[in-house]
Amino acid sequence: MYIPTFDDVKVARERVTPYIHKTPVLTSTFMNKLTGAELFFKCENFQKAGAFKVRGASNAVFGLSDEMAAKGVATHSSGNHALSLSYAAGRRGIPCHVVMPRTAPQAKKDAVIGYGGIITECEPSTSSREAVFAEVQAATGADFVHPYNDPRVIAGQATCSLELLEQVGDLDAIVAPIGGGGMISGTCLAMSNVAPEVSIYAAEPLNADDAARSFRAGHIIADDAPETVADGLKVPLKDLTWHFVSNHVTDIFTATEEEIIDAMKLIWKRMKIVMEPSSAVPLATILKNKDVFAGKRVGVIVTGGNVDLDSLPWMDK
Amino acid sequence: MYIPTFDDVKVARERVTPYIHKTPVLTSTFMNKLTGAELFFKCENFQKAGAFKVRGASNAVFGLSDEMAAKGVATHSSGNHALSLSYAAGRRGIPCHVVMPRTAPQAKKDAVIGYGGIITECEPSTSSREAVFAEVQAATGADFVHPYNDPRVIAGQATCSLELLEQVGDLDAIVAPIGGGGMISGTCLAMSNVAPEVSIYAAEPLNADDAARSFRAGHIIADDAPETVADGLKVPLKDLTWHFVSNHVTDIFTATEEEIIDAMKLIWKRMKIVMEPSSAVPLATILKNKDVFAGKRVGVIVTGGNVDLDSLPWMDK
Repeated sequence: MYIPTFDDVKVARERVTPYIHKTPVLTSTFMNKLTGAELFFKCENFQKAGAFKVRGASNAVFGLSDEMAAKGVATHSSGNHALSLSYAAGRRGIPCHVVMPRTAPQAKKDAVIGYGGIITECEPSTSSREAVFAEVQAATGADFVHPYNDPRVIAGQATCSLELLEQVGDLDAIVAPIGGGGMISGTCLAMSNVAPEVSIYAAEPLNADDAARSFRAGHIIADDAPETVADGLKVPLKDLTWHFVSNHVTDIFTATEEEIIDAMKLIWKRMKIVMEPSSAVPLATILKNKDVFAGKRVGVIVTGGNVDLDSLPWMDK
Repeated sequence: MYIPTFDDVKVARERVTPYIHKTPVLTSTFMNKLTGAELFFKCENFQKAGAFKVRGASNAVFGLSDEMAAKGVATHSSGNHALSLSYAAGRRGIPCHVVMPRTAPQAKKDAVIGYGGIITECEPSTSSREAVFAEVQAATGADFVHPYNDPRVIAGQATCSLELLEQVGDLDAIVAPIGGGGMISGTCLAMSNVAPEVSIYAAEPLNADDAARSFRAGHIIADDAPETVADGLKVPLKDLTWHFVSNHVTDIFTATEEEIIDAMKLIWKRMKIVMEPSSAVPLATILKNKDVFAGKRVGVIVTGGNVDLDSLPWMDK
């Protein structure tokens, strides 16, 4: 297991800068009054391909040798990582293979195709996915870019909090959502090197609280297919992200489905930005733990904005 | 009729700056490819009180003498102007009286109260509104701030395009929605003085196309209660705004309800911002008149972001 270093982050920063946005940081008098903290929202919903994942994906794609790159890249995520990898591969002019269940929503397939990804369908089972993915890799020689348990991806995600810190100056804490732990690991990697005094809090849906339970237990606990509206946060920690979470995270807070949806709607209403349920989990946990954050300068990572506008979660309530 | 001058705009700029946001300008590779133009979205949906109207309202409120101000301000709008005037009055610490029909949606009443406005209810008829408004004015001596046909308001709105031009440099055209014509008049006032080469296009719902018909006829045509999803654009031109529209506007384009809703959804989806149906009318008209805008640098005024998240227009389609 290769653990990425701060040198890797510096290389990633240089490498990805031409292909990504320096996303804005928004503040809100309303949110500050509501929480008692001073919040700085790092808006990765405005990022290329609509999510922070393009940072790690671009670092992986543009770090390949020409020989490796010619064979393309591959993944079996069907979420923001697939869009981001397709985007980055498109910018380099190489193929991106995405293995997706044939039962996946057409909108998700269209989004991948829209960013130039090449879809190979599998049956909706882990065994079929793994078999089809192995076939694609064997046929193409494409480089597998894991959505989070990959040092190149973590070094790329680390550029987000680095940028945030430069934009706002000192921070007391950063709160980011946790699923597989790619963003949190990148945040730990960056902050432990440039601002070790910054506390790092992970925010997780209570319905998919495997990271919180892992954190308390001291070892990885992986759940099987948890159900939550924050669909980017269902995946479990892996060895590389567990390394960062177990060594650098201050605490992991959870929020219920209702708290997540309420926080999401509140951000849309007051801050006028479109962001995913996953991105609302940090605010939901800050509102539940006001004493932890009161009077502090807190960075909040708004991880992405790819949401189905025809099926907003408060419409089902 | 006093027609505001560019000196009034310069005074307004100084006066309102402490109370409003310098809103960001967003660009989108996707939107540029789609339209063939280079679009600069001036995001007044991120403005204080959620709309550009706070510019004109603040100019009116902070331009009052202390003696006048002590009596407060009043309006009978129940939309963004009421929120903006309430906000500005709150910042000055003076009362803002808002006459609203008792049948107005509770959400609108709550929003006005949330910004500190004092509501006096009337019956849902023009005669009752006028009678109740006259009573409120007689009882309080509050200064009436019209939502658009007021030189102070127009001079305030003019600061928006002035700011946009400073942010992006040269422009070939600016497209803004037209209802009563306050924003368009301010844009004409600013551009005719600092950049007369900029073409100014007004964008209007076909269902409420009284401004377009006025423009062709050469005199004001006022419709009675048109129905459109762009509910900020139902009101007719008045003498002061007609002066600017008839003298400085290059053309007025219209869009159907479906075109407006599609453009709104497209902006939410691709640009990740929450904005009102009214604010989508410019993009809808640009998409219909690509030949006019192709290859040009075009400012697009995103006028506001106050929308009912429980009742989005594409949900009814």
